[in-house]
Amino acid sequence: MQWYFVASLLTILTSSQGILTTLSQSNGGYKYDYATVPFLAEVFKLLVSSVLLWRECKRSPPPRMTTEWKSIRLFPIPSIIYLIHNNVQFATLTYVDTSTYQIMGNLKIVTTGILFRLFLRRKLSNLQWMAIVLLAIGTTTSQVRGCGEASCDSLFSAPIQGYMLGILSACLSALAGVYTEFLMKKNDDSLYWQNVQLYTFGAIFNMARLILDDYRSGFEKGPWWHRLFNGYSVTTWMVVLNLGSTGLLVSWLMKYADNIVKVYSTSMAMLLTMVLSVFLFNFKPTLQLFLGIVICMMSLHMYFAPPTMLVDLPLTVKSAPESHLDRRTNS
Amino acid sequence: MQWYFVASLLTILTSSQGILTTLSQSNGGYKYDYATVPFLAEVFKLLVSSVLLWRECKRSPPPRMTTEWKSIRLFPIPSIIYLIHNNVQFATLTYVDTSTYQIMGNLKIVTTGILFRLFLRRKLSNLQWMAIVLLAIGTTTSQVRGCGEASCDSLFSAPIQGYMLGILSACLSALAGVYTEFLMKKNDDSLYWQNVQLYTFGAIFNMARLILDDYRSGFEKGPWWHRLFNGYSVTTWMVVLNLGSTGLLVSWLMKYADNIVKVYSTSMAMLLTMVLSVFLFNFKPTLQLFLGIVICMMSLHMYFAPPTMLVDLPLTVKSAPESHLDRRTNS
Repeated sequence: MQWYFVASLLTILTSSQGILTTLSQSNGGYKYDYATVPFLAEVFKLLVSSVLLWRECKRSPPPRMTTEWKSIRLFPIPSIIYLIHNNVQFATLTYVDTSTYQIMGNLKIVTTGILFRLFLRRKLSNLQWMAIVLLAIGTTTSQVRGCGEASCDSLFSAPIQGYMLGILSACLSALAGVYTEFLMKKNDDSLYWQNVQLYTFGAIFNMARLILDDYRSGFEKGPWWHRLFNGYSVTTWMVVLNLGSTGLLVSWLMKYADNIVKVYSTSMAMLLTMVLSVFLFNFKPTLQLFLGIVICMMSLHMYFAPPTMLVDLPLTVKSAPESHLDRRTNS
Repeated sequence: MQWYFVASLLTILTSSQGILTTLSQSNGGYKYDYATVPFLAEVFKLLVSSVLLWRECKRSPPPRMTTEWKSIRLFPIPSIIYLIHNNVQFATLTYVDTSTYQIMGNLKIVTTGILFRLFLRRKLSNLQWMAIVLLAIGTTTSQVRGCGEASCDSLFSAPIQGYMLGILSACLSALAGVYTEFLMKKNDDSLYWQNVQLYTFGAIFNMARLILDDYRSGFEKGPWWHRLFNGYSVTTWMVVLNLGSTGLLVSWLMKYADNIVKVYSTSMAMLLTMVLSVFLFNFKPTLQLFLGIVICMMSLHMYFAPPTMLVDLPLTVKSAPESHLDRRTNS
């Protein structure tokens, strides 16, 4: 399986996620408890990975599985980072409005690049760094509000704490991704075994969150297992399956590709969602959306195209008058 | 003299041009006839070039000067193209509003690249093409209106003729530049001799325009030479000298560098003017301006940095876990 096939599939499914979530709403609100969706998605991923691992165990040679506690104890860490991230996210939103929050979210593209370099010690060329920054700029450009829209003056007028928390949020999000990549690549263990560990802890942490919600609300909506399938429609189930599938694809990319590929997939998905929204929900396309898409496409080409394709001069050109600028005559 | 020094000077002077022109207004209007400014600038350039040519003639060896009519007759062509361009510009503005016109003006960056490739047969790498498109996108991004401003709904809602004329205008502007570069580089003639020819025709065409204006207005403001220094302040003279100087620098760049260098200089000047306006005229800086500046800076680096600097991976990094994506492990 080629990584770019998986990445494209991730883009399509991530984009559907936004659209399905919107479609699963009725009258602008959720009839079901949205907090139950990530829990069920974790359970779905755990089931799929368990079945695949079980099938792999029946074949010979059996899959490589490290079962030492020293290794297993690392797998709850991504869940813990996401837990902290969720709380920081919540705190950030008490300081900044959602537009500013959304725009600051693009920072995680750059922080992922930085942590990818620092923690995974992966080398990036000058051009690849520029491509990563351009990707963040492209997604930001596409999100800049059009003219005459409300909530514009509030953009970047929040207290400094809001921005600090936004940066912290971007760092935590990147850290979770980079740490997962480290976990998946640190040995040759079966992907499915690694997934089973990851999602077991994921399911436990999500369940803990549901229980905590119950205590916080004083059980006024009943215990979480009563809310589990309450108000679920076919679309809600599709949201669950879709979220679970994107998780499995991300896991695959973390092992066989890397965080940067994931960041490109999800950024492209964001743009795809905006384009689809123009058709599905009659969103008015803006010049900024068009500019953002072109910037991101160029960033994609800059990052992934072979360097020689990028810098070599075309050779089929007939003898041209020599440039006075030497740098251009060197291929 | 290095081309990047001349290019930087051009950026500073072009940027001052916008600010000086604004400062030369009183109560939002001009006390002088603005059409006289380009004419005087042509005369200034002609005088400077004549003096420099005369000094060059006294030295030995004397400067190379092609005085055949076959060569001289090519020098009015840039002026003719600019004349057509001015009329197309005028026609475009009857269809589109000034915001749309300003944004379409960035198309000339791309058309310059295309004509530069087609007519001057200059080779550009894949990356340099992307840099040129990014420069156009960066300048456009910086000009996108902020929220809540008027004249926003009108953006890109003009009749199709407006856009066709806008594209034609961008092509003519690029053609004039590319043709001037061809003229300056077609032989080893002295730059000053080429300038004298160029500006003699420039002065004649500008004078013809002033005379035409007189006839059109039925001499109600008197003949053009009465209007020539009428209402001129020190700032107006600075506008004239500044416009003349930028013309001389452009001429130098056309001979010893190229159109792309000029396009970068003037685009950077546009951004510099916007930044200076924030301080001088209390313009409110927008997120778009910041994004546009970053995009243009990266475009500049992509176009002019040596290819090896862009694509080589850093070598000082300690042994890193090998990537599963082969393309990244090749330097």
